[in-house]
Amino acid sequence: RKRILVTGGAGFVGSHLVDKLMMEGHDVVVVDNFFTGRKRNVHHWIGHPHFELINHDITKPLHLQCDQIYHLACPASPPHYQHNPIKTIKISALGTLNMLGLARHVKARMLLASTSEVYGDPQVHPQREDYWGNVNPIGPRSCYDEGKRVAESMCYAYQKQENISIRVARIFNTFGPRMHPNDGRVVSNFIMQALQGHDITVYGDGKQTRCFQFVSDLVEGLYKLMNSNNNLPTNLGNPVETSISAFARYIRKHVNASVSIKYLPAAIDDPHQRKPDITRARTLLGWQPVVDLDTGIRKTVEYFQKELSQM
Amino acid sequence: RKRILVTGGAGFVGSHLVDKLMMEGHDVVVVDNFFTGRKRNVHHWIGHPHFELINHDITKPLHLQCDQIYHLACPASPPHYQHNPIKTIKISALGTLNMLGLARHVKARMLLASTSEVYGDPQVHPQREDYWGNVNPIGPRSCYDEGKRVAESMCYAYQKQENISIRVARIFNTFGPRMHPNDGRVVSNFIMQALQGHDITVYGDGKQTRCFQFVSDLVEGLYKLMNSNNNLPTNLGNPVETSISAFARYIRKHVNASVSIKYLPAAIDDPHQRKPDITRARTLLGWQPVVDLDTGIRKTVEYFQKELSQM
Ligand SMILES: NC(=O)c1ccc[n+]([C@@H]2O[C@H](COP(=O)([O-])OP(=O)(O)OC[C@H]3O[C@@H](n4cnc5c(N)ncnc54)[C@H](O)[C@@H]3O)[C@@H](O)[C@H]2O)c1
Ligand SMILES: NC(=O)c1ccc[n+]([C@@H]2O[C@H](COP(=O)([O-])OP(=O)(O)OC[C@H]3O[C@@H](n4cnc5c(N)ncnc54)[C@H](O)[C@@H]3O)[C@@H](O)[C@H]2O)c1
Ligand SMILES: O=c1ccn([C@@H]2O[C@H](COP(=O)(O)OP(=O)(O)O)[C@@H](O)[C@H]2O)c(=O)[nH]1
Ligand SMILES: O=c1ccn([C@@H]2O[C@H](COP(=O)(O)OP(=O)(O)O)[C@@H](O)[C@H]2O)c(=O)[nH]1
Ligand SMILES: O=c1ccn([C@@H]2O[C@H](COP(=O)(O)OP(=O)(O)O)[C@@H](O)[C@H]2O)c(=O)[nH]1
Ligand SMILES: O=c1ccn([C@@H]2O[C@H](COP(=O)(O)OP(=O)(O)O)[C@@H](O)[C@H]2O)c(=O)[nH]1
Repeated sequence: RKRILVTGGAGFVGSHLVDKLMMEGHDVVVVDNFFTGRKRNVHHWIGHPHFELINHDITKPLHLQCDQIYHLACPASPPHYQHNPIKTIKISALGTLNMLGLARHVKARMLLASTSEVYGDPQVHPQREDYWGNVNPIGPRSCYDEGKRVAESMCYAYQKQENISIRVARIFNTFGPRMHPNDGRVVSNFIMQALQGHDITVYGDGKQTRCFQFVSDLVEGLYKLMNSNNNLPTNLGNPVETSISAFARYIRKHVNASVSIKYLPAAIDDPHQRKPDITRARTLLGWQPVVDLDTGIRKTVEYFQKELSQM
Repeated sequence: RKRILVTGGAGFVGSHLVDKLMMEGHDVVVVDNFFTGRKRNVHHWIGHPHFELINHDITKPLHLQCDQIYHLACPASPPHYQHNPIKTIKISALGTLNMLGLARHVKARMLLASTSEVYGDPQVHPQREDYWGNVNPIGPRSCYDEGKRVAESMCYAYQKQENISIRVARIFNTFGPRMHPNDGRVVSNFIMQALQGHDITVYGDGKQTRCFQFVSDLVEGLYKLMNSNNNLPTNLGNPVETSISAFARYIRKHVNASVSIKYLPAAIDDPHQRKPDITRARTLLGWQPVVDLDTGIRKTVEYFQKELSQM
C-alpha cells in the first residue's frame, strides 16, 4: 500500500485515476484548486479513511509525504488553456518544478501527464516517441505545448542531476464520463450539441484527424507506466484514426439527432493529423487500448444525458 | 535618457551592451549573480553616477524601477548550461517570468535574448523566423533550448494578456573580446588552443556549419530592436556560413600556429547546419552585420593574447 499524490485529481482523467488507485487499496491524496476540475468528480471518496482532498494551487510549493506523484494538474482543453495563457504556462513550468522539488525532497517517483501536443502539428505519421515535433513556439497553443515540453525537459534534468525517478506519459485525445460539459473539446462539444439539438460545429474543413481513447484505457496505461521500469516518454493513445467531419457524422448518428453539421473557421495552428505509434507502450508495458469507440461513446453519451437532466 | 536594466550585464554580450548604453547616456542597472560573468567585464563603469551593479539571482523576484529591460541572464555555452541543467531551466523559466512580472509592474519594455537554438537541428536553411524548429525536448541540450522556447512563449503570453511590450532577439553564434577563456564555445576554444600550442579539438567530422557574428554587430542589433516597433522574433546573426573544420584551419592559419587538428567524438544532438535569414532585421530594423570575420577574429585573438599574458 502506497501513499500516492494525484495533482489535478478532481479533473476528468485524475478522478478516474483516483478511483483506480483507491480500488487498489492505496492511500490517495488529491491536490486540486478546482480551476477546471470539480469536487463532485471525487465526491464519492470524501470521508474515506484512505482519501484526502487538498485545495491548493500547485504553482505554489507543496509539502507532504508520498511515495508516488501522478502530476496531472493542468487545464487540457484549448479554449481553457488559451483563455489565460500566463496561468497555463505557470502551471506547467512552476507546477512541474514544484512537484519535482517535492519528489526530490521525499524521494518519490513522479509521473508527468504530458501530451501528444509536444508533437505539435506533426509531419510524421504515426508519431513515435523519438519524433521531435513541429510546435509553433509563439502561437496561441504554445502556452500549453511549450509548457509541456519544458515540463518534460525538467523531468529529465531532475532525473539526470538528482536521480529522481520519473515517468512521462504522452497522452493522446481522451474522452469519457466526467468531461466537463463546457470543456470545449470536440467529444464533449459534439455530444452536447447533438443531445441539445444544436448544430454540430466543425472547425475548419473537418479533414483534420484525431484518435480517441476511452478514459479507462488511459488510466490503465498510466498505472502500468508508473509501476514499470520504463522511464522513456511513452505514448498512451488509441491508434484508430478518424477525421473530425466523419466523427461529427458518427456522433450525430449515434445520438440519433437530426441536427446539421456547421463548418466554422479553422482554429489557428490546429494540428492536421495525429495518431500515436504505441509500440513502446505495447512492448514495455504490455498495454494497449481495449475499449472500442462505440462502447466508449455510449457510456459518455449516457453520462452527458444524465448531466443534462440535472441542469 | 532612460533607466535601463540589463540582466546578465556582467557577461560577454551584456557587458558590451552596457558599454553602448552608457555611451548613449542612459542610466544603467546591471543585475548579475556572476555565475558565468565577471565583475571585471563592467569594472570600468563602477563608480560612474549613471551605473549600478546589483549582485542578485534573477530566479528570485526583483523589485526596482526601469523603462527597459534587456534580459540576457542565462549561461550560453553548451558545457556550462549542460553542467547544471536544472539551474539552466530555472534561469529561463523562473528568470523570464520574474522579468515579465517586473516589466508588467513598472510598465517597462522587455527584450528577451533568445537564441538560434530554438530552431534546434534545423531542417530548413537558412532559418527564417517562421520556421518552428527541430528540437529534442529531452536531450542534453533541451534544458537550454526548451528553456528559451518557453521563455519566448511567456513573452507572447504576457504581451497578449497583459499588454506588455516585448522584443525577442534570436541570437546566432556571437564572439568577441570578453568571452570567457574557459567558456567552452568553439571560438574561444580554438583561439586559446592555437595560442597555447595545443591541438585544436573538432567535435565530430567538422562538417557541421555555424555563422559567426562579431559582438559589436549584435549589440547594435539588440539596441535597434529594443527601440523599434517590431515585436516579432527577430534573427540577429551574420549569414556568412563556415564549416567547423574550415574554421579550425582558419584559426590555425590566423594565429600562425603549428598545431594539429584533432577530431573528437561528436557532441550529442549537435546541430548540423545553421544560418540565419536576416531579412526581417534588414527590413524592419535597417540592421545588418558590418564587421567581417578577419577583423572580428583579429580583435578577439588580441584579447585572448592579453588574457594569457596576465595568467
Ligand atoms: N484529456 C485529454 O485528452 C488529455 C490529453 C493530453 C494530455 N492530457 C493531460 O492530462 C491531464 C489531465 O487532463 P484532464 O483532461 O483531466 O483535464 P482537466 O481540466 O479535467 O483536469 C485538470 C485538473 O487540474 C486542476 N488544476 C489546474 N490547475 C491547477 C493548479 N494550478 N493547481 C492545482 N490543480 C490545478 C484542475 O482543477 C483539474 O481538476 C492534464 O495534465 C492534461 O494536460 C489530457
Ligand atoms: N553569445 C552567443 O553566441 C549567444 C547566442 C545565442 C544566445 N545568446 C544569449 O545571450 C545571452 C548572453 O549570452 P553571453 O554569451 O553573454 O553569455 P554569458 O554566460 O557570458 O553571460 C550570461 C550572464 O548572465 C549571468 N547570469 C547567469 N545566471 C544568472 C542568474 N540566475 N541571475 C543573474 N545573472 C545570471 C552570468 O553571470 C553572466 O554574466 C544569453 O541569454 C544567451 O542565451 C548568446
Ligand atoms: O517538498 C518540497 C520541496 C520543494 N518544493 C519546491 O520545488 C521547487 C524546486 O525544488 P528544488 O529543491 O529542486 O529547488 P530549490 O528549492 O533549491 O529552488 C522549489 O521551488 C520548491 O519550492 C516543494 O514544493 N515541495
Ligand atoms: O467544437 C469543436 C471542437 C473541436 N473541433 C476540432 O476537433 C479537433 C480536436 O479538438 P480538441 O479541442 O478536442 O483537442 P485537440 O486535439 O485539438 O487538443 C480539432 O481539430 C478541433 O479544431 C471541432 O471541429 N469542433
Ligand atoms: O516587480 C516585480 C513584479 C513581479 N515579479 C515576479 O514576477 C513573477 C510574475 O509576476 P506576475 O505579476 O505576472 O504574477 P504573480 O505575481 O501574480 O504570480 C512573480 O513570480 C513575481 O515574483 C518581480 O520579480 N518583480
Ligand atoms: O572545442 C570545440 C567546441 C565546439 N565545437 C563545435 O563547434 C560548433 C559550435 O559550438 P559552440 O559550443 O560554440 O556553440 P553551439 O552553436 O553549438 O551552441 C559545434 O558543432 C561544436 O560541436 C568543436 O568542434 N570544438
